[in-house]
Amino acid sequence: MSAPARRRVEVPLGERSYTIEIGLGTLDELGAAVKQVVEPTRALLVTTPPVGRRYGARALASLRGAGLRARRFDVPDGERSKSLAQAGRLYDALLAGGADRGSVVVALGGGVVGDLAGFVAATLLRGVPVVQVPTSLLAMVDSSVGGKTGVNVARGKNLVGAFHQPRLVWIDAATLRTLPPRQLRAGLAEVVKHAAIADAGLFEELEAQGERLLGGELERWLPILERNCAIKARVVALDERETGLRMTLNFGHTLGHAVESLARYRGVLHGEAVAIGMAFAARRSEALGLAPAGTAERLVGLLARLGLPTALPRHPRRAYLAALSVDKKKRDTRIRFVALRGIGRADTVPLLPTEILPPEVR
Amino acid sequence: MSAPARRRVEVPLGERSYTIEIGLGTLDELGAAVKQVVEPTRALLVTTPPVGRRYGARALASLRGAGLRARRFDVPDGERSKSLAQAGRLYDALLAGGADRGSVVVALGGGVVGDLAGFVAATLLRGVPVVQVPTSLLAMVDSSVGGKTGVNVARGKNLVGAFHQPRLVWIDAATLRTLPPRQLRAGLAEVVKHAAIADAGLFEELEAQGERLLGGELERWLPILERNCAIKARVVALDERETGLRMTLNFGHTLGHAVESLARYRGVLHGEAVAIGMAFAARRSEALGLAPAGTAERLVGLLARLGLPTALPRHPRRAYLAALSVDKKKRDTRIRFVALRGIGRADTVPLLPTEILPPEVR
Repeated sequence: MSAPARRRVEVPLGERSYTIEIGLGTLDELGAAVKQVVEPTRALLVTTPPVGRRYGARALASLRGAGLRARRFDVPDGERSKSLAQAGRLYDALLAGGADRGSVVVALGGGVVGDLAGFVAATLLRGVPVVQVPTSLLAMVDSSVGGKTGVNVARGKNLVGAFHQPRLVWIDAATLRTLPPRQLRAGLAEVVKHAAIADAGLFEELEAQGERLLGGELERWLPILERNCAIKARVVALDERETGLRMTLNFGHTLGHAVESLARYRGVLHGEAVAIGMAFAARRSEALGLAPAGTAERLVGLLARLGLPTALPRHPRRAYLAALSVDKKKRDTRIRFVALRGIGRADTVPLLPTEILPPEVR
Repeated sequence: MSAPARRRVEVPLGERSYTIEIGLGTLDELGAAVKQVVEPTRALLVTTPPVGRRYGARALASLRGAGLRARRFDVPDGERSKSLAQAGRLYDALLAGGADRGSVVVALGGGVVGDLAGFVAATLLRGVPVVQVPTSLLAMVDSSVGGKTGVNVARGKNLVGAFHQPRLVWIDAATLRTLPPRQLRAGLAEVVKHAAIADAGLFEELEAQGERLLGGELERWLPILERNCAIKARVVALDERETGLRMTLNFGHTLGHAVESLARYRGVLHGEAVAIGMAFAARRSEALGLAPAGTAERLVGLLARLGLPTALPRHPRRAYLAALSVDKKKRDTRIRFVALRGIGRADTVPLLPTEILPPEVR
């Protein structure tokens, strides 16, 4: 059997440009790629215990095999690791482990590891390079690309962070084999998001494949990963600092963040919260006359077929309004709400929290 | 009496360019300048209780007079405020006070406030603009210019931070009137540093004026501030991210940081530690044959006349070596030690900690 074709997506950002390398079974080649692209003095591999148990030894062996000094640093699994306190512990551990300006941070794991390790890399010694090695679907198609890093504070998600583009994104789709089905579904929420805001053709393909996406050969993921990374790369290249177009990538995230915050980041995965937020946003877009009738139904139908939640959890309306009012996309009092304009098209509309969530909706 | 001439120094950094405005009694014009340069939705004034008592009300009145919503946020005085924990409290306070992406952080105070507020601005909502309003001599001639921000961690000073250029540096030399004499002397250490590494003419002027610099009319500071800001601006413009030339601004800082760290940031001011570090570095430069004989004597003589310490505090040599080995300028095992090549000239030499501090020296 011949090896499946490698896929490569460029993220053109001038001197901050980088490549997303997509393959199957390519984890063992990580070290050579890191060495070639970054030329670091040492590699600081940041991961979680569950991911580290599965892939840590291979990643370390690959880095060392390329002649790099490498050590592994574990952070606890889960969204609650995206905290200043955890960042503080990681700074200390990395410095104790010999971190210097020539070091590279290698983030091996899902979105939490990528966001936390990316933020720590952005601020350690005023910035060291980071390589993202996403092992969850969500991280592969979304969070590992684009340079957004951050931690959560009491008032909300990602309210502290930095734009810090990776020097390389290394995707081995074979790591999806060990991803729990619920995590895989949650990652599909961001795939649906990309399709809904930017690629009607991809949306139709997702509708055609439906729940069959969740089983089958891993090789089938390669074109999906490539297409999603290309959408993300294009948007980021046009608007790196999120002053306009990039905001559309937050489709479903305004309510999604509120859902996560009200659940105290427990019991609901980010992708699930985004699915709920997208369903809500699509319905609101229709109700506000921004999207043609039937748009929300199509989106909700696809999400439901993929096993994703679409109903807003029951919390008091005032709790939602309070959670919305600290959304970091807020500018003054109105929020840049991402509205769907139809399948494959989105833009932002400045709305007050009370307009996003009018009394009759909740 | 006519108002003294304003001085203006440009920091040319492409799209991150900004102006250093130097005047006497100009604090009341801060608001109009912030409004014109940044056009923020609101101003978040960060200061300390002692500085805030003296200048907080005028700064707030000026900001509000320009039509900006403005609030004051106090952080405790002293180097120990440059911590992740303090940054965490400041994020929460600023967000509770309505911080959004259109807000500007205004740092009113000395180096601690500038570094901490600058770091918080760099990372709040992935970056909001900052205006530096330095009220100490050290901050005016050094730390407010160049975009270095950061906090200290257990392993050393400024090991966590970001490059975040201010949008404006607003220097009202009249605030030096209330600066304690010891702080004024400590600030002169950085003035002497600039002269020693880059401006032999300024060094001679400092020798000619000597201790008389510390008394007299505030107007006399204006040309000194201008000349120092110009030196700093030129170096930063040529090497913003400190990959080469900018490292020479760390003259005296390698040992200086060790002195501060071993004192646990208590009892010794940053400028005093830098004076000690410069005297040490000049002597080592001579001993290593890098600087002509007599260089160290001239530098030490000037520092002593200005009332600055020049002798290394007594700590075990191994304590100094340990403090040196986590210096963030370390790359692998050698440290980029800033050597004086004569008065007005410096460069960096890679040295092992044991070469910087050989047994016969301590």
